[in-house]
Amino acid sequence: MNPAGLDALAEALRCLPGVGPKSAQRMAHHLLQSDRQGARRLGEAILHALDAVRHCQRCNTFSETDLCTRCASSQRDSTLLCIVETPVDMNMMEQTLAYQGLYYVLMGRLSPLDGMGARELGFERLLERVLDGVVREVILATNYTNEGEATAHYLAAMLAPRGVRVTRIARGVPVGGELEFVDPGTLAQALRERKSCAG
Amino acid sequence: MNPAGLDALAEALRCLPGVGPKSAQRMAHHLLQSDRQGARRLGEAILHALDAVRHCQRCNTFSETDLCTRCASSQRDSTLLCIVETPVDMNMMEQTLAYQGLYYVLMGRLSPLDGMGARELGFERLLERVLDGVVREVILATNYTNEGEATAHYLAAMLAPRGVRVTRIARGVPVGGELEFVDPGTLAQALRERKSCAG
Repeated sequence: MNPAGLDALAEALRCLPGVGPKSAQRMAHHLLQSDRQGARRLGEAILHALDAVRHCQRCNTFSETDLCTRCASSQRDSTLLCIVETPVDMNMMEQTLAYQGLYYVLMGRLSPLDGMGARELGFERLLERVLDGVVREVILATNYTNEGEATAHYLAAMLAPRGVRVTRIARGVPVGGELEFVDPGTLAQALRERKSCAG
Repeated sequence: MNPAGLDALAEALRCLPGVGPKSAQRMAHHLLQSDRQGARRLGEAILHALDAVRHCQRCNTFSETDLCTRCASSQRDSTLLCIVETPVDMNMMEQTLAYQGLYYVLMGRLSPLDGMGARELGFERLLERVLDGVVREVILATNYTNEGEATAHYLAAMLAPRGVRVTRIARGVPVGGELEFVDPGTLAQALRERKSCAG
Protein backbone atom coordinates (compact mmCIF):
# COMPACT_ATOMS: atom_id res chain seq x y z
CA MET A 1 0.00 0.00 0.00
CA ASN A 2 3.02 2.29 0.43
CA PRO A 3 5.15 3.62 -2.41
CA ALA A 4 7.94 1.18 -3.30
CA GLY A 5 10.77 3.50 -2.23
CA LEU A 6 9.27 3.88 1.24
CA ASP A 7 8.82 0.14 1.71
CA ALA A 8 12.35 -0.51 0.46
CA LEU A 9 13.68 2.05 2.95
CA ALA A 10 11.77 0.52 5.87
CA GLU A 11 12.98 -2.95 4.86
CA ALA A 12 16.59 -1.73 4.59
CA LEU A 13 16.43 -0.09 8.04
CA ARG A 14 15.81 -3.52 9.55
CA CYS A 15 19.50 -4.37 9.09
CA LEU A 16 20.13 -2.12 12.12
CA PRO A 17 20.43 -4.06 15.38
CA GLY A 18 17.28 -3.88 17.53
CA VAL A 19 15.06 -2.46 14.78
CA GLY A 20 11.88 -4.43 14.08
CA PRO A 21 9.22 -3.83 11.40
CA LYS A 22 7.26 -1.22 13.40
CA SER A 23 10.30 0.89 14.36
CA ALA A 24 11.65 0.59 10.82
CA GLN A 25 8.42 2.01 9.44
CA ARG A 26 8.41 4.80 12.01
CA MET A 27 12.03 5.64 11.18
CA ALA A 28 11.35 5.68 7.44
CA HIS A 29 8.40 8.04 7.88
CA HIS A 30 10.42 10.27 10.18
CA LEU A 31 13.30 10.49 7.70
CA LEU A 32 11.06 11.34 4.75
CA GLN A 33 8.66 13.63 6.59
CA SER A 34 10.61 15.45 9.27
CA ASP A 35 14.33 15.16 8.61
CA ARG A 36 15.23 14.97 4.94
CA GLN A 37 18.49 16.79 5.55
CA GLY A 38 19.51 14.34 8.27
CA ALA A 39 18.44 11.48 6.02
CA ARG A 40 20.65 12.66 3.18
CA ARG A 41 23.55 13.06 5.60
CA LEU A 42 22.93 9.54 6.92
CA GLY A 43 22.75 7.97 3.47
CA GLU A 44 25.97 9.67 2.44
CA ALA A 45 27.72 8.88 5.75
CA ILE A 46 26.94 5.18 5.32
CA LEU A 47 28.26 5.02 1.77
CA HIS A 48 31.32 7.11 2.67
CA ALA A 49 32.14 4.96 5.71
CA LEU A 50 31.82 1.78 3.65
CA ASP A 51 34.40 3.13 1.24
CA ALA A 52 36.73 4.80 3.71
CA VAL A 53 36.74 2.64 6.84
CA ARG A 54 38.71 -0.61 6.77
CA HIS A 55 40.83 -2.49 9.30
CA CYS A 56 44.25 -1.58 10.69
CA GLN A 57 46.68 -4.13 9.26
CA ARG A 58 48.38 -4.49 12.60
CA CYS A 59 45.73 -4.35 15.34
CA ASN A 60 42.60 -5.08 13.28
CA THR A 61 40.58 -2.14 14.63
CA PHE A 62 38.64 0.19 12.33
CA SER A 63 40.93 2.59 10.52
CA GLU A 64 40.95 4.78 7.43
CA THR A 65 44.67 4.22 6.95
CA ASP A 66 46.77 1.02 6.66
CA LEU A 67 47.99 1.52 10.23
CA CYS A 68 45.78 3.15 12.87
CA THR A 69 47.17 6.14 14.77
CA ARG A 70 47.96 3.99 17.80
CA CYS A 71 49.91 1.34 15.87
CA ALA A 72 51.72 4.07 13.89
CA SER A 73 52.75 5.94 17.03
CA SER A 74 56.30 5.61 18.34
CA GLN A 75 55.16 6.67 21.83
CA ARG A 76 53.53 3.34 22.69
CA ASP A 77 55.20 0.41 24.45
CA SER A 78 55.33 -2.26 21.77
CA THR A 79 56.31 -5.02 24.20
CA LEU A 80 52.77 -5.02 25.61
CA LEU A 81 49.83 -6.31 23.59
CA CYS A 82 46.29 -6.02 24.97
CA ILE A 83 43.66 -8.23 23.33
CA VAL A 84 40.10 -6.86 23.37
CA GLU A 85 36.85 -7.93 21.71
CA THR A 86 35.78 -4.68 20.06
CA PRO A 87 36.99 -1.15 19.22
CA VAL A 88 34.61 0.14 21.93
CA ASP A 89 36.46 -1.97 24.52
CA MET A 90 39.74 -0.53 23.25
CA ASN A 91 38.38 2.99 23.70
CA MET A 92 37.35 2.09 27.25
CA MET A 93 40.91 0.88 27.99
CA GLU A 94 42.32 4.10 26.52
CA GLN A 95 40.05 6.19 28.70
CA THR A 96 41.68 4.72 31.82
CA LEU A 97 44.94 6.46 30.80
CA ALA A 98 46.56 3.49 32.57
CA TYR A 99 47.85 1.63 29.52
CA GLN A 100 50.54 2.68 27.08
CA GLY A 101 50.98 -0.56 25.12
CA LEU A 102 49.46 -1.69 21.84
CA TYR A 103 46.22 -3.54 21.11
CA TYR A 104 44.79 -6.33 19.06
CA VAL A 105 41.05 -6.15 18.39
CA LEU A 106 39.37 -9.52 17.78
CA MET A 107 36.22 -7.89 16.32
CA GLY A 108 34.17 -10.52 18.11
CA ARG A 109 34.50 -13.42 20.50
CA LEU A 110 34.42 -17.22 20.27
CA SER A 111 30.76 -18.09 19.89
CA PRO A 112 30.16 -21.41 18.14
CA LEU A 113 26.38 -20.88 18.05
CA ASP A 114 26.89 -17.72 15.97
CA GLY A 115 29.44 -19.47 13.77
CA MET A 116 32.36 -17.54 15.29
CA GLY A 117 35.30 -19.91 15.68
CA ALA A 118 39.08 -19.55 15.77
CA ARG A 119 39.20 -19.29 11.99
CA GLU A 120 36.50 -16.62 11.69
CA LEU A 121 38.24 -14.50 14.33
CA GLY A 122 41.59 -14.84 12.52
CA PHE A 123 43.56 -16.33 15.41
CA GLU A 124 46.37 -17.28 13.00
CA ARG A 125 46.92 -13.63 12.17
CA LEU A 126 46.86 -12.82 15.89
CA LEU A 127 49.49 -15.52 16.54
CA GLU A 128 51.72 -13.99 13.86
CA ARG A 129 51.26 -10.59 15.48
CA VAL A 130 52.18 -11.93 18.95
CA LEU A 131 55.26 -13.75 17.66
CA ASP A 132 56.81 -10.66 16.04
CA GLY A 133 59.77 -10.91 18.43
CA VAL A 134 58.94 -7.63 20.19
CA VAL A 135 55.84 -8.51 22.22
CA ARG A 136 56.76 -9.80 25.69
CA GLU A 137 53.39 -9.80 27.42
CA VAL A 138 49.89 -10.42 26.15
CA ILE A 139 47.09 -8.98 28.33
CA LEU A 140 43.77 -10.71 27.81
CA ALA A 141 41.04 -8.09 28.23
CA THR A 142 38.05 -9.91 26.77
CA ASN A 143 34.78 -9.51 28.65
CA TYR A 144 34.03 -11.54 31.77
CA THR A 145 31.00 -13.06 30.06
CA ASN A 146 30.86 -16.78 29.31
CA GLU A 147 31.95 -16.21 25.72
CA GLY A 148 34.64 -13.71 26.65
CA GLU A 149 36.00 -16.14 29.26
CA ALA A 150 36.02 -19.01 26.77
CA THR A 151 37.90 -16.79 24.31
CA ALA A 152 40.47 -15.87 26.99
CA HIS A 153 40.98 -19.53 27.94
CA TYR A 154 41.46 -20.51 24.30
CA LEU A 155 43.94 -17.70 23.69
CA ALA A 156 45.87 -18.46 26.89
CA ALA A 157 46.19 -22.11 25.85
CA MET A 158 47.30 -21.05 22.38
CA LEU A 159 49.82 -18.39 23.42
CA ALA A 160 51.34 -19.63 26.71
CA PRO A 161 53.48 -22.40 25.13
CA ARG A 162 54.99 -19.86 22.69
CA GLY A 163 57.20 -18.21 25.29
CA VAL A 164 55.21 -14.99 25.84
CA ARG A 165 53.83 -14.00 29.19
CA VAL A 166 50.01 -14.18 29.16
CA THR A 167 47.98 -12.28 31.77
CA ARG A 168 44.30 -11.58 32.34
CA ILE A 169 42.79 -8.33 33.69
CA ALA A 170 41.70 -8.70 37.33
CA ARG A 171 38.22 -9.54 38.48
CA GLY A 172 36.77 -8.24 41.73
CA VAL A 173 34.73 -5.65 43.55
CA PRO A 174 34.36 -2.48 41.40
CA VAL A 175 36.06 0.69 42.58
CA GLY A 176 33.52 2.56 44.71
CA GLY A 177 31.49 -0.66 44.99
CA GLU A 178 29.70 -1.65 48.20
CA LEU A 179 29.76 -5.33 49.15
CA GLU A 180 26.03 -5.17 49.82
CA PHE A 181 25.32 -4.58 46.13
CA VAL A 182 27.99 -6.79 44.54
CA ASP A 183 26.70 -10.09 43.14
CA PRO A 184 27.79 -13.25 45.02
CA GLY A 185 29.79 -14.61 42.07
CA THR A 186 31.96 -11.49 41.89
CA LEU A 187 32.41 -11.46 45.66
CA ALA A 188 33.40 -15.14 45.68
CA GLN A 189 36.03 -14.43 43.00
CA ALA A 190 37.29 -11.38 44.89
CA LEU A 191 37.72 -13.58 47.96
CA ARG A 192 39.45 -16.38 46.06
CA GLU A 193 41.81 -13.94 44.32
CA ARG A 194 42.57 -11.91 47.46
CA LYS A 195 45.94 -10.16 47.68
CA SER A 196 48.22 -9.87 50.68
CA CYS A 197 48.38 -6.36 52.08
CA ALA A 198 51.67 -4.58 52.49
CA GLY A 199 52.35 -4.61 56.28
CA MET B 1 39.87 8.05 18.88
CA ASN B 2 37.82 6.49 16.09
CA PRO B 3 38.40 7.01 12.38
CA ALA B 4 36.51 10.08 11.12
CA GLY B 5 34.19 8.12 8.82
CA LEU B 6 33.04 5.93 11.71
CA ASP B 7 32.35 8.91 13.99
CA ALA B 8 30.50 10.70 11.19
CA LEU B 9 28.36 7.61 10.62
CA ALA B 10 27.51 7.26 14.33
CA GLU B 11 26.67 10.97 14.48
CA ALA B 12 24.46 10.71 11.37
CA LEU B 13 22.58 7.70 12.79
CA ARG B 14 21.37 9.90 15.64
CA CYS B 15 18.86 11.55 13.31
CA LEU B 16 16.82 8.34 13.68
CA PRO B 17 14.08 8.61 16.32
CA GLY B 18 14.95 6.89 19.59
CA VAL B 19 18.65 6.46 18.80
CA GLY B 20 21.05 7.90 21.40
CA PRO B 21 24.86 8.08 21.28
CA LYS B 22 25.46 4.52 22.60
CA SER B 23 23.01 2.84 20.20
CA ALA B 24 24.34 4.94 17.33
CA GLN B 25 27.86 3.72 18.00
CA ARG B 26 26.67 0.13 18.30
CA MET B 27 24.76 0.46 15.03
CA ALA B 28 27.74 2.00 13.23
CA HIS B 29 30.02 -0.84 14.37
CA HIS B 30 27.45 -3.43 13.41
CA LEU B 31 27.03 -1.97 9.93
CA LEU B 32 30.78 -1.80 9.26
CA GLN B 33 31.72 -5.07 10.91
CA SER B 34 28.87 -7.51 10.39
CA ASP B 35 26.58 -6.26 7.66
CA ARG B 36 28.33 -4.26 4.97
CA GLN B 37 25.91 -5.53 2.35
CA GLY B 38 22.91 -4.41 4.40
CA ALA B 39 24.63 -1.09 5.05
CA ARG B 40 25.14 -0.44 1.34
CA ARG B 41 21.51 -1.35 0.69
CA LEU B 42 20.42 1.02 3.48
CA GLY B 43 22.54 3.92 2.24
CA GLU B 44 21.22 3.50 -1.28
CA ALA B 45 17.61 3.03 -0.12
CA ILE B 46 17.75 6.31 1.81
CA LEU B 47 19.13 8.30 -1.11
CA HIS B 48 16.71 6.63 -3.54
CA ALA B 49 13.69 7.29 -1.32
CA LEU B 50 14.69 10.95 -0.90
CA ASP B 51 14.68 11.32 -4.67
CA ALA B 52 11.66 9.19 -5.47
CA VAL B 53 9.17 9.65 -2.65
CA ARG B 54 7.17 12.87 -2.54
CA HIS B 55 3.59 13.72 -1.58
CA CYS B 56 0.37 12.91 -3.43
CA GLN B 57 -0.95 16.23 -4.75
CA ARG B 58 -4.45 15.33 -3.71
CA CYS B 59 -4.32 13.49 -0.40
CA ASN B 60 -0.82 14.49 0.78
CA THR B 61 0.32 10.94 1.61
CA PHE B 62 3.71 9.63 0.48
CA SER B 63 3.70 8.78 -3.20
CA GLU B 64 6.14 8.26 -6.04
CA THR B 65 3.64 9.65 -8.55
CA ASP B 66 1.70 12.94 -8.66
CA LEU B 67 -1.43 11.09 -7.58
CA CYS B 68 -1.24 8.08 -5.27
CA THR B 69 -2.92 4.85 -6.40
CA ARG B 70 -5.91 5.49 -4.16
CA CYS B 71 -6.59 9.02 -5.41
CA ALA B 72 -6.07 7.89 -9.00
CA SER B 73 -8.50 4.99 -8.64
CA SER B 74 -12.01 5.31 -10.08
CA GLN B 75 -13.27 2.61 -7.70
CA ARG B 76 -13.30 4.83 -4.63
CA ASP B 77 -16.25 6.85 -3.37
CA SER B 78 -15.11 10.44 -3.84
CA THR B 79 -17.97 11.90 -1.79
CA LEU B 80 -16.31 10.62 1.41
CA LEU B 81 -13.07 12.14 2.73
CA CYS B 82 -11.37 10.62 5.75
CA ILE B 83 -8.80 12.82 7.51
CA VAL B 84 -5.97 10.97 9.28
CA GLU B 85 -2.74 12.08 10.92
CA THR B 86 -0.23 9.80 9.19
CA PRO B 87 0.12 7.34 6.30
CA VAL B 88 0.32 4.56 8.90
CA ASP B 89 -3.13 5.53 10.18
CA MET B 90 -4.40 5.45 6.60
CA ASN B 91 -3.01 1.94 6.17
CA MET B 92 -4.78 0.90 9.38
CA MET B 93 -8.08 2.25 8.03
CA GLU B 94 -7.51 0.39 4.75
CA GLN B 95 -6.88 -2.85 6.62
CA THR B 96 -10.40 -2.69 8.04
CA LEU B 97 -11.77 -3.16 4.49
CA ALA B 98 -14.70 -1.08 5.81
CA TYR B 99 -13.98 2.16 3.99
CA GLN B 100 -14.13 2.84 0.29
CA GLY B 101 -13.80 6.64 0.27
CA LEU B 102 -10.75 8.84 -0.17
CA TYR B 103 -8.28 10.21 2.37
CA TYR B 104 -6.45 13.33 3.36
CA VAL B 105 -3.25 12.83 5.35
CA LEU B 106 -2.28 15.71 7.63
CA MET B 107 1.28 14.42 8.11
CA GLY B 108 1.08 15.53 11.72
CA ARG B 109 -1.31 17.01 14.25
CA LEU B 110 -1.83 20.39 15.89
CA SER B 111 0.92 20.67 18.47
CA PRO B 112 1.85 24.26 19.35
CA LEU B 113 4.76 23.13 21.55
CA ASP B 114 6.39 21.44 18.54
CA GLY B 115 5.63 24.42 16.33
CA MET B 116 2.88 22.60 14.42
CA GLY B 117 0.00 25.00 13.77
CA ALA B 118 -2.71 25.33 11.16
CA ARG B 119 -0.25 26.85 8.70
CA GLU B 120 2.42 24.18 9.11
CA LEU B 121 -0.18 21.45 8.57
CA GLY B 122 -1.47 23.20 5.43
CA PHE B 123 -5.11 23.51 6.51
CA GLU B 124 -5.75 25.93 3.64
CA ARG B 125 -4.88 23.24 1.13
CA LEU B 126 -7.14 20.82 3.03
CA LEU B 127 -10.00 23.33 2.89
CA GLU B 128 -9.56 23.62 -0.86
CA ARG B 129 -9.63 19.84 -1.14
CA VAL B 130 -12.84 19.59 0.93
CA LEU B 131 -14.60 22.31 -1.08
CA ASP B 132 -14.04 20.63 -4.45
CA GLY B 133 -17.80 20.28 -4.86
CA VAL B 134 -17.75 16.48 -4.74
CA VAL B 135 -17.00 15.76 -1.09
CA ARG B 136 -20.20 15.45 0.96
CA GLU B 137 -18.87 14.06 4.23
CA VAL B 138 -15.60 14.55 6.06
CA ILE B 139 -14.73 11.81 8.56
CA LEU B 140 -12.30 12.96 11.24
CA ALA B 141 -10.09 9.99 12.11
CA THR B 142 -7.31 11.70 14.05
CA ASN B 143 -6.08 9.90 17.17
CA TYR B 144 -7.98 10.10 20.43
CA THR B 145 -4.95 11.65 22.11
CA ASN B 146 -5.08 15.21 23.44
CA GLU B 147 -3.42 16.57 20.32
CA GLY B 148 -5.51 14.45 17.96
CA GLU B 149 -8.67 15.61 19.73
CA ALA B 150 -7.62 19.27 19.52
CA THR B 151 -6.95 18.81 15.80
CA ALA B 152 -10.39 17.24 15.28
CA HIS B 153 -12.11 20.08 17.16
CA TYR B 154 -10.26 22.67 15.11
CA LEU B 155 -11.11 20.96 11.84
CA ALA B 156 -14.77 20.49 12.81
CA ALA B 157 -15.05 24.21 13.62
CA MET B 158 -13.37 25.07 10.33
CA LEU B 159 -15.35 22.73 8.08
CA ALA B 160 -18.85 22.57 9.59
CA PRO B 161 -19.91 26.10 8.49
CA ARG B 162 -18.92 25.26 4.90
CA GLY B 163 -21.88 23.03 4.24
CA VAL B 164 -20.15 19.63 4.42
CA ARG B 165 -21.19 16.98 6.90
CA VAL B 166 -18.41 16.46 9.47
CA THR B 167 -18.27 13.24 11.52
CA ARG B 168 -15.83 11.71 14.01
CA ILE B 169 -15.01 8.01 14.33
CA ALA B 170 -16.64 6.44 17.39
CA ARG B 171 -15.02 6.03 20.76
CA GLY B 172 -15.84 3.12 23.07
CA VAL B 173 -14.98 -0.33 24.36
CA PRO B 174 -12.71 -2.15 21.85
CA VAL B 175 -14.12 -5.14 20.00
CA GLY B 176 -13.26 -8.21 22.11
CA GLY B 177 -12.55 -5.92 25.07
CA GLU B 178 -13.49 -6.87 28.63
CA LEU B 179 -14.88 -4.10 30.83
CA GLU B 180 -12.51 -5.22 33.60
CA PHE B 181 -9.50 -4.13 31.56
CA VAL B 182 -10.86 -1.00 29.88
CA ASP B 183 -9.66 2.30 31.36
CA PRO B 184 -12.31 4.34 33.22
CA GLY B 185 -12.15 7.25 30.74
CA THR B 186 -13.02 5.01 27.80
CA LEU B 187 -15.78 3.31 29.77
CA ALA B 188 -17.24 6.67 30.80
CA GLN B 189 -17.30 7.77 27.15
CA ALA B 190 -18.85 4.48 26.07
CA LEU B 191 -21.57 5.04 28.62
CA ARG B 192 -22.17 8.66 27.61
CA GLU B 193 -22.29 7.76 23.91
CA ARG B 194 -24.49 4.67 24.39
CA LYS B 195 -26.75 3.65 21.51
CA SER B 196 -30.32 2.43 21.70
CA CYS B 197 -30.64 -1.26 20.83
CA ALA B 198 -32.95 -2.44 18.12
CA GLY B 199 -35.88 -4.02 19.97
